[in-house]
Amino acid sequence: MSAEIICVGTELLLGDILNSNAQYLAKQLAQLGIPHYFQTTVGDNPERLKKVIEIAASRAQILIFTGGLGPTPDDLTGETIADFFGATLVEKPEIIDDITQKFAARGRVMTPSNRKQALIPEGAEILPNQTGTAPGIIWQPRPGITIFTFPGVPSEMYRMWEETAVPFLKSQGWGKEIIYSRMLRFFGVGESALAEKVASYLNSTNPTVAPYAGKGEVRLRISAKATSPTQAEELIVPVEKKLQEIAGLDYYGADNDTLATVVGRLLHTAGQTLSVAESCTGGTIGQMLTEISGSSEYFWGGVISYDNSVKVGLLGVNPQDLEKFGAVSATVAEQMALGVKTRLKTTWGLSVTGIAGPTGGTDTKPVGLVYIGLATPNGKVESFEYTFGASRGRSLIRHYSACTALDLLRRKLLMGNG
Amino acid sequence: MSAEIICVGTELLLGDILNSNAQYLAKQLAQLGIPHYFQTTVGDNPERLKKVIEIAASRAQILIFTGGLGPTPDDLTGETIADFFGATLVEKPEIIDDITQKFAARGRVMTPSNRKQALIPEGAEILPNQTGTAPGIIWQPRPGITIFTFPGVPSEMYRMWEETAVPFLKSQGWGKEIIYSRMLRFFGVGESALAEKVASYLNSTNPTVAPYAGKGEVRLRISAKATSPTQAEELIVPVEKKLQEIAGLDYYGADNDTLATVVGRLLHTAGQTLSVAESCTGGTIGQMLTEISGSSEYFWGGVISYDNSVKVGLLGVNPQDLEKFGAVSATVAEQMALGVKTRLKTTWGLSVTGIAGPTGGTDTKPVGLVYIGLATPNGKVESFEYTFGASRGRSLIRHYSACTALDLLRRKLLMGNG
Repeated sequence: MSAEIICVGTELLLGDILNSNAQYLAKQLAQLGIPHYFQTTVGDNPERLKKVIEIAASRAQILIFTGGLGPTPDDLTGETIADFFGATLVEKPEIIDDITQKFAARGRVMTPSNRKQALIPEGAEILPNQTGTAPGIIWQPRPGITIFTFPGVPSEMYRMWEETAVPFLKSQGWGKEIIYSRMLRFFGVGESALAEKVASYLNSTNPTVAPYAGKGEVRLRISAKATSPTQAEELIVPVEKKLQEIAGLDYYGADNDTLATVVGRLLHTAGQTLSVAESCTGGTIGQMLTEISGSSEYFWGGVISYDNSVKVGLLGVNPQDLEKFGAVSATVAEQMALGVKTRLKTTWGLSVTGIAGPTGGTDTKPVGLVYIGLATPNGKVESFEYTFGASRGRSLIRHYSACTALDLLRRKLLMGNG
Repeated sequence: MSAEIICVGTELLLGDILNSNAQYLAKQLAQLGIPHYFQTTVGDNPERLKKVIEIAASRAQILIFTGGLGPTPDDLTGETIADFFGATLVEKPEIIDDITQKFAARGRVMTPSNRKQALIPEGAEILPNQTGTAPGIIWQPRPGITIFTFPGVPSEMYRMWEETAVPFLKSQGWGKEIIYSRMLRFFGVGESALAEKVASYLNSTNPTVAPYAGKGEVRLRISAKATSPTQAEELIVPVEKKLQEIAGLDYYGADNDTLATVVGRLLHTAGQTLSVAESCTGGTIGQMLTEISGSSEYFWGGVISYDNSVKVGLLGVNPQDLEKFGAVSATVAEQMALGVKTRLKTTWGLSVTGIAGPTGGTDTKPVGLVYIGLATPNGKVESFEYTFGASRGRSLIRHYSACTALDLLRRKLLMGNG
């Protein structure tokens, strides 16, 4: 018994859109423990779609279609499936009612073209669409084959999948064993270095541990197959603790944590506040911290001191030092951090100054050279030098700089201040 | 004659990664004018991969594989293809040399497992990989079938495609007619409103015009089929001009332009400078502007005045007005804009204060209410009220706020200052 994902849409063949529906459905099937071995993408073409259905029905028992349920003439998925299995289409008055009401709520009148969305194969059940006008179907056109259709709009599809398809599949006996995962997040350690440290866990079976890397951080995903959340926790937690122990301070959080949410939590717990002085990151750290609702409690703001005049005028950086050491220097980073902490009257002051490139590098100060300054609660100030490498490019150098600054503060907060 | 894209990797079936390779290749094929009707995804399983090859070879003539060329035992694409077409694998010394050199450059020694990457089917040509260790192949295993293999790592695949596959396909007669496109970008107008205005162009054939919408902006893509860039320009430019004319100030740029790059260009041309005072956007506008190399010329920096104390202390907002009108008010937005312009001595001062939510809204000041202040070169200051709607969510409200602020300045700059 296995499922197959079939994505219908000429826009996928033209590369106009990224097929995120296939990834979503793949993840969902894995979680429910439903094997799936093939995914096919085909355009809005009935003849080719029929060939795809023929192949899929010969090798899978659950066929999941997305796309092609809209009101325009090129939306042909429903009628092509019905045609392939030799079923008649019937108009469902409850769908007409639903579409009419949805149009009315938006102050509009249903167009004749929407009428075709009310046609479903005889014997199929309606898979209701709460947010859009296109309903899907659940249908067993012949013994051993179950068809699901979903609209291509991801948000509509997700909701229909969760609210209707999942309960149906569970009622059919699927999902007794579900895959539960936890993503552990690490910063300040490379993928291969971390993989070597935790090597003995990478071959374990339940839970499995798999490493991922991207944009400066490394992740380890722990996945357990279990019949209940409690059983999954029993499998995951001991491994999670071991991995955290091995990684030490390089471990920063799990699942939806970001460096900003973790720093925010630590500041909140300590009852402390933060301000930032950003040069090469130009507002990125502020942006990351304020993305979190409630961050105003511990993040008071900062200064984007892109031009040197702002470093002097708003942060009190010494113009002679700027001249002597340059804007990208340990001294200036320290004065920026202290300046913002003093002026904004916060517990901590964090600063970044660097050369994000691609221009502006010299032999002694290459692109990718970044100084991070940290003014601590006891009035001291420290600075740290990083070379992120010109080859990474401007955008990533800025991202690494902002993340590294937050990570530095995180470590200080964990070690009980400076 | 058509192509088929076959993506190999169990991680795709588990939903661990998004299949961006399929989108990239689809776009590339469309540009070269090579029809393609099917995309298939399959795991690292030789039996199932063989079935996929059999189906693909029966309906397409160019088979493009990505993934499964690595050094680990589950990387089986190369040998499975060879096996299907009954070819022997031969070890290529030049690949061994290349891998050895790449390892040496990284201060490492080639591992025995990499040796398998040097095995390619007899008669196939090597498709060199400049950045990684896994080479691909170009191979005609039988008349009328051409095979391409690429590693799954997108950056490696892109380069190999552009540097080797495209010249090869052109040498085979493809790409004589190429699709050239220009993306026109609009802000401050809805998708349906713009579509209605340009309705007569949406049915044209060469060039075609298609609307897209996302994250507050609307785009119109003009696509022309032509035999040369010059011919494409001749087709695209007249339509481009007409669409710009119809859209007026709602048109802001083309292709890789962003509101920040356009504002930057206008400031540069005018020889003017900008500073920002950000409350609810918390650094987002600064982040957007400083993402552009060379922005220090016109963007001097700003203040992230997240806490009210920073609005008073660093921007000179009147505490009585803060008390009387609230931090989210026209008065405070104006004082923030004027404050940052005066203190940073820039030509323009731009400010944002609003309620990004999800908490903090009231009956009179709901989540999504945002004020934008603009201090102009002549010393005047204006403010503008927006209601972006709580349902959009914190992240999008912040994004809309930042984009709308930049768009406001763009319009002022185009209209010859304030």
